[in-house]
Amino acid sequence: MDYKEHIKIVQDWPKEGVEFKDITPLMADGKVFKAAIDEIIEYAKEKKADIIVGPEARGFIIGCPVSYALEVGFAPVRKEGKLPRDVIKVSYGLEYGENVLTLHKDAIKPGQRVLITDDLLATGGTIEATIKLVEKLGGIVVGCAFLIDLAYLNGMEKLKDYDVLTLMKYE
Amino acid sequence: MDYKEHIKIVQDWPKEGVEFKDITPLMADGKVFKAAIDEIIEYAKEKKADIIVGPEARGFIIGCPVSYALEVGFAPVRKEGKLPRDVIKVSYGLEYGENVLTLHKDAIKPGQRVLITDDLLATGGTIEATIKLVEKLGGIVVGCAFLIDLAYLNGMEKLKDYDVLTLMKYE
Repeated sequence: MDYKEHIKIVQDWPKEGVEFKDITPLMADGKVFKAAIDEIIEYAKEKKADIIVGPEARGFIIGCPVSYALEVGFAPVRKEGKLPRDVIKVSYGLEYGENVLTLHKDAIKPGQRVLITDDLLATGGTIEATIKLVEKLGGIVVGCAFLIDLAYLNGMEKLKDYDVLTLMKYE
Repeated sequence: MDYKEHIKIVQDWPKEGVEFKDITPLMADGKVFKAAIDEIIEYAKEKKADIIVGPEARGFIIGCPVSYALEVGFAPVRKEGKLPRDVIKVSYGLEYGENVLTLHKDAIKPGQRVLITDDLLATGGTIEATIKLVEKLGGIVVGCAFLIDLAYLNGMEKLKDYDVLTLMKYE
């Protein structure tokens, strides 16, 4: 399936010079959304993932249907102040300032096989921070799955020690 | 299934006097998460929903698996500045200050049968705003589905003209 037909390129958003890849048209088409998620489900099965982890908010869009279909759990990674119980934290640099991501301390059991999901791999900062959170809790990252790889931002470089699935690539 | 066994009550979070209902343990158990979502899927089928709409971020957790399973689209409602194309907006009052929710103008076609999903019905402000967005675009709200109804906050009062499914109720 040519998923790119269902991605809208938005020029100069959120700022000049950026070509934003909007996945909402893909999600709006039930058959296309299902086909994309089914590829990630097959990948999760191959990797024998026993829990799915995704950063807010678009990581939930991809990860929760995978979790549902495979009857494995889903653990949300959230910005600071959003998760109500004991968390671990990882800070990472953004272009301007810093971001903090958190995960409940009891979200992952040591040795669990974790698939990480997000809509899009850009510079890889969010996913690198998510991997750190999972590994701090003793989880084994068996794969990372994205709809889109923005290859010109070299996020794959940060993930070179991990197995990665992407359904679309923009050079 | 007794879903409440899988909800953790967090005292005094995010502020004193609040008993926060944490759904992450329910999501962490694949079988329980699937059972809960399956009830919402049955409801969506009965209501003949042809698109699912959910507000960020926890509305995605519930709505995206329903969308996946029924092969109908999902349209995200997001805070201002998060959706890249032309949007409609609705403001609504919070305890302190105001919030703005947005939806892409092309997200709903007139006459589409819309199921709205979120994790929890509290005062109903977010859902009321979401309903307004859908109806402004000509969508027909055929139902609203939540895991939890915090009945003591009277959110159901705001939804009295709509059909509502909730899986757990706290008095």
